[in-house]
Order: sequence, then C-alpha cells, then structure tokens
Amino acid sequence: MPAVDTAWSIERARALDDEDALGGIRHRFLRPDGLVYLDGNSLGMLPTGVPEATRRVVEEEWGRALISGWTECGWMEAPERLGDRIAPIIGAGPGEVLVADTTSVALAKLVGAALAARRDRRVVLTSADNFPSDLYAAAGAARLQGAELRVVDRSELPAALDEDVAVCCLTQVDFRTGELHDLPGLTAAAHEVGALALFDLCHSAGALPVGLGEHGVDLAVGCTYKYLNGGPGSPSFLYVREGLQGELENPLPGWLGHETPFDFDRRWRPAEGIRRFLTSTPPILALTALDAALDAFEGVSIDTVRAKSERLGQLFIEVIDDLGPASLTVASPREAARRGSQVSLEHPRAGEVVAAAADKGVVGDFRSPGLCRFGFAPLYLSYAEVFQAAELVSAAATSLSD
Amino acid sequence: MPAVDTAWSIERARALDDEDALGGIRHRFLRPDGLVYLDGNSLGMLPTGVPEATRRVVEEEWGRALISGWTECGWMEAPERLGDRIAPIIGAGPGEVLVADTTSVALAKLVGAALAARRDRRVVLTSADNFPSDLYAAAGAARLQGAELRVVDRSELPAALDEDVAVCCLTQVDFRTGELHDLPGLTAAAHEVGALALFDLCHSAGALPVGLGEHGVDLAVGCTYKYLNGGPGSPSFLYVREGLQGELENPLPGWLGHETPFDFDRRWRPAEGIRRFLTSTPPILALTALDAALDAFEGVSIDTVRAKSERLGQLFIEVIDDLGPASLTVASPREAARRGSQVSLEHPRAGEVVAAAADKGVVGDFRSPGLCRFGFAPLYLSYAEVFQAAELVSAAATSLSD
Repeated sequence: MPAVDTAWSIERARALDDEDALGGIRHRFLRPDGLVYLDGNSLGMLPTGVPEATRRVVEEEWGRALISGWTECGWMEAPERLGDRIAPIIGAGPGEVLVADTTSVALAKLVGAALAARRDRRVVLTSADNFPSDLYAAAGAARLQGAELRVVDRSELPAALDEDVAVCCLTQVDFRTGELHDLPGLTAAAHEVGALALFDLCHSAGALPVGLGEHGVDLAVGCTYKYLNGGPGSPSFLYVREGLQGELENPLPGWLGHETPFDFDRRWRPAEGIRRFLTSTPPILALTALDAALDAFEGVSIDTVRAKSERLGQLFIEVIDDLGPASLTVASPREAARRGSQVSLEHPRAGEVVAAAADKGVVGDFRSPGLCRFGFAPLYLSYAEVFQAAELVSAAATSLSD
Repeated sequence: MPAVDTAWSIERARALDDEDALGGIRHRFLRPDGLVYLDGNSLGMLPTGVPEATRRVVEEEWGRALISGWTECGWMEAPERLGDRIAPIIGAGPGEVLVADTTSVALAKLVGAALAARRDRRVVLTSADNFPSDLYAAAGAARLQGAELRVVDRSELPAALDEDVAVCCLTQVDFRTGELHDLPGLTAAAHEVGALALFDLCHSAGALPVGLGEHGVDLAVGCTYKYLNGGPGSPSFLYVREGLQGELENPLPGWLGHETPFDFDRRWRPAEGIRRFLTSTPPILALTALDAALDAFEGVSIDTVRAKSERLGQLFIEVIDDLGPASLTVASPREAARRGSQVSLEHPRAGEVVAAAADKGVVGDFRSPGLCRFGFAPLYLSYAEVFQAAELVSAAATSLSD
C-alpha cells in the first residue's frame, strides 16, 4: 500500500479554503493586492464599511449636525452601544462592556477600582511575562493607593495567590509566544482566595471565545485595533461583571460617568451600571470607525473563528517544520488549545527573516532579540495565503542560515 | 449738532466685516448655509481639510500601509507633533505640549503628578464654579493619594492659597458666564506659597492669548474640540512647563511613555521630556483630523483672534441691550477684558429662547436653569452674523416675555 501523502501543498490549502465557513467573510475587508498580512495581531485590516462611515460622521454628522450630533446622531450613547456590540464576541452580557480611553488607562481604572473596594488587601498579582504596559499601568495604579504589584513567574501564579491579593491581573494570550493562560482555572483560583480576576484581552478578543460570563471573570480590558479591526489607536473596551458594578467606584471620575451630567452638579454621583466607568467626552470619529468595523463580525460565530484560527496555526507550524531550517524553531505552544491566534518562531537572525518575508509581501513582526511573530486573523486570511507565507518564511530563514 | 447715531445696524456690522483681518479665514471652514453657529465653544465647525485628511488616513494609511503606518506615516510621533502645533496658540514652547486622552484623564494625570511630587502638601485647591468634570477628576486624583480637594468660592481663592496647597487647579474661562480668571495673578499667588498652578484651557485655547510661558504657568490641560475645531471627542492636550518635566512622574504610566517602548522592558523608565506623560496607543484617526483642523490657524495671530472675539462679544451685548426685553439680562462680565469668547444671557424661559433662536438658524446652547450661552469663534463668524443672531435672540426673548 502506498503511504498517504500528508505533506502540505498549495492544493491541499486551497481545498480547505473551498470548505471554509468564513471564506465568504473575506470580502468584508479591503485587502491590498499581493499582500499576505500576518500582523492582524498588531493592527487589523480595514473593513469595507469604514471609509463610508468615517466620511459620513465627518461630513454629514460633524459638518452639518454640529453640536446636535450628540443627541441626534447617537454620539452620547456610543461608548455603551459599542460595548454591547463587543460583548457577545467576548462572552459578556449587555451593559457589561464600555468602549473608551486606551487599554492602559482602562487597566489603571479597573485595578484602582479593585484596590479601593478591597481596602484590606494591598497586593495586585501579575506574571512577569505580562505585556509591559500592563505591568507599568498596574504598578502605577497600585503605587497611587500605597499598594504593591507582586510580579511572579507564570508557573508560580497559583501559589502566589493569597488573601493579600485584591486582584490578579493577567493578559490572556502572551504577546511574545501566543501562549494562553488558563482563564477559567486562574479565575477560580483567584476567587478561592477572595481576589478578583482581571484579564487583558488585547490578543484574544475577536480571535477566540473568551467566555467572560461563563467563567465568572470579574474585570477585563482590551484594545479594539487588533482582531476587532477598529483602526490605529482605536479606543479600548472595559468589562465589569454586572454583579460587581455597584460595588466598584471609578477612580478616574469625569462628567460623562455622572448620573445626570447635564445637571452640572458639583457633587459626584456615579451613573448606574457600566456608564460610571466612563470619564470624559468619547472620541466619536474613532468610535464610528469601530462601529463600522464590527459589522465584519455580523453573523459570525466566535467558535467558527477559533476553529479556523487553530487550523491556520497548525498549517503554519507544520509547513515550517517541513520546510524550515533547523535554526527556525517554534516558540509557541504546539498544542492549538494552549495557543492564541499567533505563532512565534525563534531564529538567530529573526529581524532579517521578518524583513526578507516582508520583501516578498508577507507581513509579520519582529520582537527583539530573536522572535518572529505571525498572527492569524481568520476573518480575512485564507489557508492558501498562510501556506504561501510559511513557504516564504522557511525559504527566507534557510537562506539566512547558510 | 445732530447726535451721532451709535446704534448697531446690519450695515455697520458689514462695514466691520469689510475691514476684518480674519475675513479671509472663513473659507477654511465648511459652513452649512443659513446657519449662524454660536456654539463653537461646545463643538467647533468642520475645517475644510478634514474630510480629505480622514479619507487619506483611513484608505491610504491604515488601508494600505497597515502596521507600517506607525513608522512610515508619522503616527508614532503624532502626540508630540500635534502638541508642538498647539503650543504657539497657548503660548507654550516646543516639547511642552502633548495630545492624548481626554481632558479629565489628563487633569487626573497632572493633579496626581503634582501631589506625588509635593508629598508634604495634601491639598488641591479649586473654585466651586469650576467645570464639574474638573471637580470630579481632581477630587478623584486627590482621593487616590489620600489628599483633599479644597473647594472655595472664586473670591476666596487668594485667601485659600496656603502652604498645604500642592496645586491650584482652575478653569481659565468659566463655562457658565464666560468670566476670565486672572491667570497671571493666580499663578503668581500660587507660586508665592510654593504651590503649582494648573489651568484648564478648554474655553480659552484658540480663543485668546493664554501666555502659559510668559506667566510661568506650571501645568495645563484642555480639549481640542471647541475653538481648536478637532471634531467631536477629539483628544485633549496637556502642558507641563519644561523646567518641571524632570520632577514629575506620570501617575498613569503606559508603554508609549517609556524611554524605549520597543525594548518591552519590565522596568518602567520614563521617556525624557513631555513624552513621559503619554500612556498608551494614541487615536490616529482623531489625531489626523485634528492635524488638518489646526491648518485653520496657519498664519493667524492669536492676538488678532482675541481682538475680533472681543468686538463680536461687545456687538452682541450692545444689540441685546438695545433690542432685548428687560427680562433678558447679560450674565457675563460686560468688560471684554474680563470675559472669554462667549456671552451668556439670563432669561426666565432661557431654554425656550435658545430653541426659538435655533428654529431661525441661530445655534447657541441652554444651561439649566436660566442661562443661554453664545460662543464667538472668530475664525468663522462674521460681524453680520452676530448682529443677526442678537436681533433674533432679542426678538425670541421679547415674544416669550409677553
């Protein structure tokens, strides 16, 4: 009996594209010709509806409605309305998500709120491999309240959870390796010692089912410019579990989080629900772009997104294994269930590998000193593209390994 | 000898337009036909170059450059570059202004930084008539550090300045009445007791010469969507006097304020200069709109803007005095030098006056319970328009006073 050919080929990749349940979604993005874009984990591609939406908000809303846009064009409610659009993508309920500020400001708000609500606990726990901005923001928030940021290795997290911990603050997907934290397990472990669980979803929202409600996560933040495709510097979102909203105070209060902002009351009275975490006037142009961008998720199941993401990653790893030189190694978990939607490769000349691939139209990114990162955005990538990218990256690394 | 006719008429207003040094600037804005827009103190009009700039950043930069936009399209430097464009408008120097976040977040940063740098002083001083969001943000920042917000009447400010005060935090122009604080005098008085002086310039930036450097102001914040015409929810700016930048720490640190953000260093090391006050990824669509909006100030002297603003205000007050009913009274200082670029009127049915004027195409706004506010943006308003607006408002108030 002849051996079954299990090697990847462009034909085999194209066959997967033919069966791809998300194949019909790709036209929802404006994809430059000749580009294989594996950097949607840094900045998502431009969704088709955004140019017209931004034209409309600038020329028709701002230009013509002017100040009345705040009431007539739905600007005032945009932070909550967009939160409610993001909620199902991350497994949250209506009224649990708000879009405003930047991720680090949102993180400082929620860490600050947690510390203020847990006055007998003076520790914020995090892992040393957390995204540095989260380390800075959490340390800053802790310092303001005379609390401490406890930074431990990832493997020591469960042991480091004790009754001094007010909040455990982690990024669900490691930005270097793509490794997934055990969100359900760590949330349960935090709750066992009476701590709150806060997750940064920058690298997971829109790429995999987070299940905030299902797993009882208390707090979350995330950006909207990676897998949610909101555009460069689009605002962050924050999530506060509904049952917790009444207990927490916004440590950065501002008039739009007030119960009745247009009373111009000198006394702070927080709005009901998630809106109390809003501070000041939201960025309407950016929110409008994000609103149009989220149309790309209409009718899309996040489980289907995850299934394709896992297959794209496996394809990429297997082709690299087949074709890449020995010096090009997989730095991400090989088991799809332990990985977000990216694959990182190590190579002694990683920067040059990324540059050589970019010259051939394959965009990834380089993280010093030796990491090439490739992200897989299932809404706009095809299996054939990922196959071609893996071939090209392998060839680039081979020529640099000579 | 016949009495000289000093009464206002449309002809007299048009004669002022003929001599208006800023008359040639009006075409820099897209002004809807038939609208007299006296709400530029809430949301400035749309500058002509913004639609094309936002189209370009969306379709060409985000859509085509994608992630490389951060380096190739100048996105990364935008917060400082735009700060440097705003600086001359408010009398600051290069490297003293940064555009990011919202006004209340920026205020919380600077109040927090001042309190952290003045550990022996536990009071933030403000006036009771400050914009409520500033009261909430300053109180929030004070609370986080166990400090106190001392709120006094405007007239009691000098007496309330003592050696417990870390920072005196005021809005230069009162949002209700348009009354100007004595910025040079209060700054000097704060310095006499060793306190820092912080001004919110939301209602002054772009409308009058602030002279931050000339008067030795230490800290400032402001929005960019009023007289700077950046669009709904465009980001705020913050100013830190150059000599003070090394002494202050950003209490909301984030990766883009790090000395070398792309080293992804776990240890926080603040960037040199104003950039340390940046927190996280800046909103590029909004910054691009603001960049194009600031073109409207090219070649414009802020002294010329102020001179026209004063004349527009005086014209408005004099016509209201002439034509308005006794029930319509001027709530702003009558002396132009004591007033920002708005005139507020009191009327028992103020909301109806504003609505009736709006029906005739004159847009002002209503502040409960009895205030009509009219702002004068000298870059796009004509004397004839302001004359017509005052006539219409007078007629509306007269009909409602019957």
